[in-house]
Amino acid sequence: MNPDWTVVDGLQYSAWSREIFEQMHEGGLDCVHVTIAYHENTRETLIRLGEWNQRFESMSDLIRPVFNPSDIAVAKAEGKIGIIFGAQNCSPIEDDIRLVELMRRLGLMIMQLTYNNQSLLACGCYEDDDSGLTRFGKQVIKEMNRVGMVIDMSHSAERSTLEAIDYSESPVIVSHANPSHFHPALRNKSNTVIDAIAANEGILGFSLYPFHLKNGPQCSLDDFCDMVVWTAERMGVERIGLGSDLCQNQPQSVLEWMRNGRWSKTMDYGEGSSGNAGWPDSLSWFSDSRDFPGIASALANRGFSDTDLGNIMGGNWVDLLTRAGAPAARDHLVHGNS
Amino acid sequence: MNPDWTVVDGLQYSAWSREIFEQMHEGGLDCVHVTIAYHENTRETLIRLGEWNQRFESMSDLIRPVFNPSDIAVAKAEGKIGIIFGAQNCSPIEDDIRLVELMRRLGLMIMQLTYNNQSLLACGCYEDDDSGLTRFGKQVIKEMNRVGMVIDMSHSAERSTLEAIDYSESPVIVSHANPSHFHPALRNKSNTVIDAIAANEGILGFSLYPFHLKNGPQCSLDDFCDMVVWTAERMGVERIGLGSDLCQNQPQSVLEWMRNGRWSKTMDYGEGSSGNAGWPDSLSWFSDSRDFPGIASALANRGFSDTDLGNIMGGNWVDLLTRAGAPAARDHLVHGNS
Repeated sequence: MNPDWTVVDGLQYSAWSREIFEQMHEGGLDCVHVTIAYHENTRETLIRLGEWNQRFESMSDLIRPVFNPSDIAVAKAEGKIGIIFGAQNCSPIEDDIRLVELMRRLGLMIMQLTYNNQSLLACGCYEDDDSGLTRFGKQVIKEMNRVGMVIDMSHSAERSTLEAIDYSESPVIVSHANPSHFHPALRNKSNTVIDAIAANEGILGFSLYPFHLKNGPQCSLDDFCDMVVWTAERMGVERIGLGSDLCQNQPQSVLEWMRNGRWSKTMDYGEGSSGNAGWPDSLSWFSDSRDFPGIASALANRGFSDTDLGNIMGGNWVDLLTRAGAPAARDHLVHGNS
Repeated sequence: MNPDWTVVDGLQYSAWSREIFEQMHEGGLDCVHVTIAYHENTRETLIRLGEWNQRFESMSDLIRPVFNPSDIAVAKAEGKIGIIFGAQNCSPIEDDIRLVELMRRLGLMIMQLTYNNQSLLACGCYEDDDSGLTRFGKQVIKEMNRVGMVIDMSHSAERSTLEAIDYSESPVIVSHANPSHFHPALRNKSNTVIDAIAANEGILGFSLYPFHLKNGPQCSLDDFCDMVVWTAERMGVERIGLGSDLCQNQPQSVLEWMRNGRWSKTMDYGEGSSGNAGWPDSLSWFSDSRDFPGIASALANRGFSDTDLGNIMGGNWVDLLTRAGAPAARDHLVHGNS
């Protein structure tokens, strides 16, 4: 891959280790958005943040925190992987709007409003019915805009997603999902949603999680590239990126935590089923971060220019975070410079 | 009032003191459902429970806890006010279904699924739109049924209320609200809801909070009695009781906590307005628990029999709690003895 590119993966949640960060380096990554919370409440989120500080201390040769979008360039210059914190749910703020600013100051740059289920803010994609943004949700969106916390609707239901895009003054993202046009999984996004993400100058990060792909673990790289080409034409080449949803070396217990949290007494299988309860098999062409160059090569063969490909591989993420992930972002937008 | 009656107030939240409990005695009360949480999370609910234990210790001549419905008779026999714990929101269980059983064991006999806003379980009456019970909400209802925690929908929106009644195997209550037919406040209940409460053998507790009454603080006792007579005819005399919503000696800060919790950066005025932000004036005929006998007398003049009046003043509450507030309640209902 072109060393001038800034390569960003828009979502990973692995059992973090030196080996995994070394694989990121080998795969040419400069920056990764990592999940720090699925259902973790405020106190538990602080535990996750503390664990990350210990990693930054013990593996300072490999990684560094990205508290602000400008830190991405610093990480690249230092030859380290920049780590962006994100939450896949609003559980870190519990019921307190004032925790939005506190969490942002602690480095939480991206937060989903919901994770599959109804939250205090909005509706998740696994509920039967979606009544859109709640009263609390509307206030939280304004506060996220104010402090530069990016709104991610990856696991949200359709009406809530469209209302969030409409209500937010900053771009809204889908960090990791694919177009339903490509594969009609519950977690993937309709043309209506991807068009709205494009119109609000957000970003769609393509997921490499097999449940989000046509033919699951047998999805071909060729089919994946077809999806990227189709989406680039529909959304614009500046509105797409990668959000691999790579979950390396995680035990079954972590999958069950994602799916069940503390809300269910009976096992919920999420995108799986009782007969297929475990992690999906990996794609043959993507099993860890060392496989990103292969994706870039395959996309290059589809005729993307070097500039466009650099933007797809990470430049669009840097641009999005610069516009939406800094405290000044909202004022910037209000003044008409976006 | 007839000393054989068991007189129960289905909702109070006052700045508890010896004086207030003495007023309860003077007014002939035997038992009061007290609110221990509006927005309190699990840890904060434990603080409230601890405060109650200290009251039980220091005022053991006046009050005793009602952990199970059978404790009401014990309290009456001892000449003490029985205190039933209830939460006006599901915040005490946070995101954890297993906290339902733990809270019940700590004495929480009644819990609302929502307080005005969307919760993780269902929708509150102040949201624009109501998508009914959530996935978590359905599981919590089953768990509340199992452990004998009574479902209260006083502050819930209509669809959620009807779905809870339909989904629950135990009777669902509205501890403190009035029919919209009498006064169309957002918090009052439609004929559809009160008919469903009657059909599920629940109970409606009449509120004496002026915002829930025709003409507010100027509502006459005569008008109140009209409402009781109308509702007794519609729901059945065994389906009604009192839930005064009496809030004595509470400062403005408590009203603001009820209305705003931690979810709003701007002041939400609830049933009030920016020009009417405080506690409403009291009714001339009901300002504290010493005024219950006057209500009983006025209702007696409307021709209720002594038996019916005793049931309205508390017997119906004892019956409801016996059916829905004990761990065996669900099995009892399943076996067809209700």
